[in-house]
Amino acid sequence: MSPRPAPLPPTLYREAVQRALLEDLGRAGDLTSNAVIAARARAAGVVVARAAGRIAGLDLAAAVFRMLDEAIQIELLVEDGADVGAGEHLARVRGPARAVLAAERTALNFLGHLSGIATATRDLVSRVGEHRARIVCTRKTTPGLRALEKYAVRVGGGANHRFGLDDAVLIKDNHLALAGGAEAAVRQARAAVGHLVRIEVEVESLAQLEEALAAGVDAVLLDNMTPQELAEAVRRTRGRAVTEASGGIGADSVAAVAASGVDLISVGWITHSAPSLDVALEIEQEPGAET
Amino acid sequence: MSPRPAPLPPTLYREAVQRALLEDLGRAGDLTSNAVIAARARAAGVVVARAAGRIAGLDLAAAVFRMLDEAIQIELLVEDGADVGAGEHLARVRGPARAVLAAERTALNFLGHLSGIATATRDLVSRVGEHRARIVCTRKTTPGLRALEKYAVRVGGGANHRFGLDDAVLIKDNHLALAGGAEAAVRQARAAVGHLVRIEVEVESLAQLEEALAAGVDAVLLDNMTPQELAEAVRRTRGRAVTEASGGIGADSVAAVAASGVDLISVGWITHSAPSLDVALEIEQEPGAET
Amino acid sequence: MSPRPAPLPPTLYREAVQRALLEDLGRAGDLTSNAVIAARARAAGVVVARAAGRIAGLDLAAAVFRMLDEAIQIELLVEDGADVGAGEHLARVRGPARAVLAAERTALNFLGHLSGIATATRDLVSRVGEHRARIVCTRKTTPGLRALEKYAVRVGGGANHRFGLDDAVLIKDNHLALAGGAEAAVRQARAAVGHLVRIEVEVESLAQLEEALAAGVDAVLLDNMTPQELAEAVRRTRGRAVTEASGGIGADSVAAVAASGVDLISVGWITHSAPSLDVALEIEQEPGAET
Amino acid sequence: MSPRPAPLPPTLYREAVQRALLEDLGRAGDLTSNAVIAARARAAGVVVARAAGRIAGLDLAAAVFRMLDEAIQIELLVEDGADVGAGEHLARVRGPARAVLAAERTALNFLGHLSGIATATRDLVSRVGEHRARIVCTRKTTPGLRALEKYAVRVGGGANHRFGLDDAVLIKDNHLALAGGAEAAVRQARAAVGHLVRIEVEVESLAQLEEALAAGVDAVLLDNMTPQELAEAVRRTRGRAVTEASGGIGADSVAAVAASGVDLISVGWITHSAPSLDVALEIEQEPGAET
Amino acid sequence: MSPRPAPLPPTLYREAVQRALLEDLGRAGDLTSNAVIAARARAAGVVVARAAGRIAGLDLAAAVFRMLDEAIQIELLVEDGADVGAGEHLARVRGPARAVLAAERTALNFLGHLSGIATATRDLVSRVGEHRARIVCTRKTTPGLRALEKYAVRVGGGANHRFGLDDAVLIKDNHLALAGGAEAAVRQARAAVGHLVRIEVEVESLAQLEEALAAGVDAVLLDNMTPQELAEAVRRTRGRAVTEASGGIGADSVAAVAASGVDLISVGWITHSAPSLDVALEIEQEPGAET
Amino acid sequence: MSPRPAPLPPTLYREAVQRALLEDLGRAGDLTSNAVIAARARAAGVVVARAAGRIAGLDLAAAVFRMLDEAIQIELLVEDGADVGAGEHLARVRGPARAVLAAERTALNFLGHLSGIATATRDLVSRVGEHRARIVCTRKTTPGLRALEKYAVRVGGGANHRFGLDDAVLIKDNHLALAGGAEAAVRQARAAVGHLVRIEVEVESLAQLEEALAAGVDAVLLDNMTPQELAEAVRRTRGRAVTEASGGIGADSVAAVAASGVDLISVGWITHSAPSLDVALEIEQEPGAET
Repeated sequence: MSPRPAPLPPTLYREAVQRALLEDLGRAGDLTSNAVIAARARAAGVVVARAAGRIAGLDLAAAVFRMLDEAIQIELLVEDGADVGAGEHLARVRGPARAVLAAERTALNFLGHLSGIATATRDLVSRVGEHRARIVCTRKTTPGLRALEKYAVRVGGGANHRFGLDDAVLIKDNHLALAGGAEAAVRQARAAVGHLVRIEVEVESLAQLEEALAAGVDAVLLDNMTPQELAEAVRRTRGRAVTEASGGIGADSVAAVAASGVDLISVGWITHSAPSLDVALEIEQEPGAET
Repeated sequence: MSPRPAPLPPTLYREAVQRALLEDLGRAGDLTSNAVIAARARAAGVVVARAAGRIAGLDLAAAVFRMLDEAIQIELLVEDGADVGAGEHLARVRGPARAVLAAERTALNFLGHLSGIATATRDLVSRVGEHRARIVCTRKTTPGLRALEKYAVRVGGGANHRFGLDDAVLIKDNHLALAGGAEAAVRQARAAVGHLVRIEVEVESLAQLEEALAAGVDAVLLDNMTPQELAEAVRRTRGRAVTEASGGIGADSVAAVAASGVDLISVGWITHSAPSLDVALEIEQEPGAET
Repeated sequence: MSPRPAPLPPTLYREAVQRALLEDLGRAGDLTSNAVIAARARAAGVVVARAAGRIAGLDLAAAVFRMLDEAIQIELLVEDGADVGAGEHLARVRGPARAVLAAERTALNFLGHLSGIATATRDLVSRVGEHRARIVCTRKTTPGLRALEKYAVRVGGGANHRFGLDDAVLIKDNHLALAGGAEAAVRQARAAVGHLVRIEVEVESLAQLEEALAAGVDAVLLDNMTPQELAEAVRRTRGRAVTEASGGIGADSVAAVAASGVDLISVGWITHSAPSLDVALEIEQEPGAET
Repeated sequence: MSPRPAPLPPTLYREAVQRALLEDLGRAGDLTSNAVIAARARAAGVVVARAAGRIAGLDLAAAVFRMLDEAIQIELLVEDGADVGAGEHLARVRGPARAVLAAERTALNFLGHLSGIATATRDLVSRVGEHRARIVCTRKTTPGLRALEKYAVRVGGGANHRFGLDDAVLIKDNHLALAGGAEAAVRQARAAVGHLVRIEVEVESLAQLEEALAAGVDAVLLDNMTPQELAEAVRRTRGRAVTEASGGIGADSVAAVAASGVDLISVGWITHSAPSLDVALEIEQEPGAET
Repeated sequence: MSPRPAPLPPTLYREAVQRALLEDLGRAGDLTSNAVIAARARAAGVVVARAAGRIAGLDLAAAVFRMLDEAIQIELLVEDGADVGAGEHLARVRGPARAVLAAERTALNFLGHLSGIATATRDLVSRVGEHRARIVCTRKTTPGLRALEKYAVRVGGGANHRFGLDDAVLIKDNHLALAGGAEAAVRQARAAVGHLVRIEVEVESLAQLEEALAAGVDAVLLDNMTPQELAEAVRRTRGRAVTEASGGIGADSVAAVAASGVDLISVGWITHSAPSLDVALEIEQEPGAET
Repeated sequence: MSPRPAPLPPTLYREAVQRALLEDLGRAGDLTSNAVIAARARAAGVVVARAAGRIAGLDLAAAVFRMLDEAIQIELLVEDGADVGAGEHLARVRGPARAVLAAERTALNFLGHLSGIATATRDLVSRVGEHRARIVCTRKTTPGLRALEKYAVRVGGGANHRFGLDDAVLIKDNHLALAGGAEAAVRQARAAVGHLVRIEVEVESLAQLEEALAAGVDAVLLDNMTPQELAEAVRRTRGRAVTEASGGIGADSVAAVAASGVDLISVGWITHSAPSLDVALEIEQEPGAET
């Protein structure tokens, strides 16, 4: 298990949790629990992984329960970053039965979504093995959830590319077409941005690579190259820039790409298409038991 | 192509679009475009499907472009609900080049996500074929995007199950454990909710089915049954309730499940795990062209 | 006293409480209390009903006090759903005097408004007496307060009709005019909506009733009929649909309407025109007493 | 008809309109219109008063229609402040039929609520007749709607008391009990607040009145006095302060109170308990007509 | 030290604090602290004034720390309104080291900004000395921070002018030009506004002053007059209205202006241009110490 | 005049403008204009600089006018980045008189605040003259306005340092104390952050500088060094890192600091303490003129 990255401060997800709860509670709350469960009934249960994977989002799940009803107690049995097997217990939940059941789905939706991303990332990371390449995510994220999904990538052992349009310069083919070539674009960018902002240029051929390196970029995005082309690009770069491979890289091809010696492999699908990890809440309490 | 469902009113997604744009613009906007593209440069491009699928979310994509800069013009070439092939053009975009590129990723993220859901739904619907079963989604949605994802399911030809905890009663195993049996639970629910609220009960065996039917439910959720069990359940129900099959149903098994005669097949993964459809913006404008 | 309905989860009213407090505090807070009461003075008081009625909104009132200053303690002496007489004590409040007085009006505004609705509802319910009819509310609610007002109706012993445009189909005269008759409208609706959504049609004559019943609706809204017409409509319906009477029904006429045998009587004025219940905060503390 | 007060700037109600629309649209929008009305059908209708009253809120109603769909056109036939009879036409609405029907209820809820307040205020104002007294509202308003309700009072010909705790000092019995008498309270308040803030003190007897006048207040709130006591209070005040009568004043008693010569009569119920004015949208369009 | 004004209720600044934290945390939180400080490390430090001044905003600073992480403890060593010397300790902070450092800058930004305003105000107040004039602020405030900045003026010993356009009438030269003279303007205003709203008129000459006084205003804004003109204006006003001097008054001229006998001196720059007070957080903890 | 930086997208300031308008309009809008100016009166005016400076914020000012009333027309006479003299006209405004006056103060507050920052920045930039140093801002910004203030710095010819805690690593003295030295801190940071994130370390002595350079940092923050020490630090750095001087640098000392050869000079006071530029709206319209 890789070291757990720093937890997100609750300030970053409080509004997302409130929004998600309101989306599920609607205008009348949980009709079912309110109708069929006694007001004072209590429930206890465990959050369980129904499939193996890497867990991310336990703090959010806990925040969902507590924001719905501060009388709910939740004890985390593992931490974000844990690799668990099918059936493993993740957290123990106790509290008013109606509230526990009303919060269940929203809590699991966060946990499953983020754990799915962490798991997909981890799987790619493990396929990279001893190669130097790090798996990085992109801006292809689910609208409204970028900060959370990028966190899940970190939990999976990956690294983060740009968080948005404003924290780095990435000159892509569309920009080059409109800007008149890599050399001019890089020069303009260097003049325009602050000293802490790095500049990366997308290249699709070795000729473009040479041009970008001559322009003095910090990183090059090697788009849609074969492992052989990538290896040649790495050789020519000779450490003058960070090398990043991208373009349709999946579980099958990632090892070959990594073997080319690139520094980074960026993968959009770990944030926009990773399947959710199957997690569930299993209620343990006997019927009628009230504390 | 199934008839297109009613478009969502913009009131329902305006805040989500604003939030998604802010998430990408951050605190400084698009460093790259601002640095390397002239302020008065204009761009034109087409939104293209890079894979075959059913399209959903064009209105949202258009809203992203226009909310970022009302000078952007967007012409839709197909409508939500269209089944397109790889390479097909979906929309034409024209406007200030910086703004077009700044809005691109956010617009595509909405379009790819919702089209992925519509495509997955459509695929299941087509496998059901002539059977009566409708594909329905669940509350296993991405936090904050439920209204949009349920819309995408409708675009895919599916139907919507509950939108939240407050618009129908669904008594699941956890409720039954805490409520003391189906008969009591249904009776309490009927007394508690309004006349427009339907009641569904989850059953895991034929014995439970009989109990639920005796209690007078509107629908039964037949969980994790084999096609044979489902067929028997349908036979016993004899139209007295809507029958819904659920539990790990995928592309491989959906036809067999449908053959059992159930009315509905609910599938969580079409909202929480459908891969994004690959869509892109291809810039057509010559460099330096200004209008 | 009818059994108390399930309390609303605080998630559903937290923003409304914050908004109401800001509306009263403005940009400078409570000028009066800050000027004339010592910073460390404490106050104790009781929330009193100045008129008889049914109480709804105590949790909201308590939330107002606590959200303004978490040092305020509030002890509820009755619960929502209590029928109280004039002069009866509802809650005891203790805390910093400035904060108690600053929160007073906002807390009472919620409590009086919701209790007024609960009281009006209860009065109608009691006039229905032994008849089967339930009193239901409509979408004629005060903008921004629908979830709270519908809760107050439940506290008053009434039931809720639709919460919004999205949780049931109600085909009214305007729809019928535009849709081309009840049969087509019901058929289209049945095809368009999910299995948990019920369909109700407004009818203004017995001929329309027959058409609606033939179309297979779940409920019929019998608009502006006399008690005799209602009785005939109930007779003809023979349990094939829920029957709902509506149209200008008040305290004087509700018993006669109920005697017709309808299942539901919907009344808009209990949410949009019920007078507020007179509630007050009586300060008990001696001047100068500081703890 | 009294001169129309200045319209509210849309900035003051845009969020309230958005919130009210979302409350009604829920997560799926208007199921009924979407199911039974053709996407391209158009509707035209008139907003009609079903009872006589003074109209307030037409700008809000128009904003509801336009915010839901900017293709809706709305032409106001009268202005806020108009006194209309039953059956009078207030506005003409044209546009996509689905959108017109989806916005109808929210628009009418604003219009009916505010017109009810304006009408109740106007009725009291007319009963005051030639006397000098102005009708003023209080802080007993519906939570979240204070700015709108105070506007409706102005439309009704009334004046506004404090808008909140922060724009004037009003020393009530609870404050006096905690502050140690009117003289000290007024002195402290004068020292604490800005030069544009006025100070009013509640008095319940002529002795308290003398004390308040001696303290140099700007206004006195004469609470629960008989008309005779009020007349004596006015006589003793001799113009040294504004005189305000309050306490359970209704349509029956307002003329007698006004005859006492007080400057102001404050009435809580015109904002918290005025019945909604009955307004409706009557669709005129033939079925099937498309433009 | 002047008596401390009433603290602001947290309701008034909670959203501003959340917004400021999000602005600094961005989408990934504190990269530096998370990378270089151990997750369980704890820190203790003191908030120190690096220059002499009057302190305002300690409650906000404390709210920043606690809102970021409720595990942070903050003990205030002085209160708002304290006059401190360079090097004086203001508060003691203890808690998780990462959270303390992440919240530091946002907390200091509030504290420095508001203390700067309080200090500038206090300096002017002290130059007024024994004269009767009070220093008052204007509506020239930093967008979004008016309530906080006006509070800081109170802490500095100043008083508040209008909080906004809606709590008093101030007829300025632009209004007079459009309204047709002071007499008409004041008469119209008196008729239009409530009894608790005061009316002030800006005058630029003694002739205008006479006109305003004849119109019966509550206050006169004597704009850009010399001390001699001000003294004459005060003499002519003879207590019939509050007199306010304004227009380019700074530390050098305030005493001479005050000597004219005016009641108020309004100064825009104390809110829009007061330099921030230099405050810092000094960490005391030894490296590696964990509790 | 330096080249104008890219304008901010309106998405980045729409909410700030709405918030600022609400803060000034309060709950009743502009009492004065509504009372003394005819509803149909129109006004025209010019926004004027009353002092020389560099202009920033014209788009925001225009947005304020248009958001209050879309009938207001505003024509910009200069662009952000213009250096203007006292008396120079910046924009022409035309529209409904009440709305123009109601929006005036909020528009000017944005414009004066941001122009003050741009002017202070430009003044420092011009004092740097031919030296290579760029002026950069810090995170010492006014809470809630960071994106806008950083934009104003760019308009003034300065560059932006970090936008927040999440877009670069800046290891300061407090971090070093808790992390155990520069070498370990830099190594940990490099491992933890993405490839586009730069790392800067604060050093207070030449010894610390050597340590930081050995650790391979991207930039060094040379804190509180004399120009001589700075020159020596620059000499030793020999281009291996960006050099940044900071610590109490003002107009008097900036040239000497720049002469040391550092790459950057960071200055907190240009954002937290720059005086507002004096701007005003001068109404030109004759009284009574209506268009």
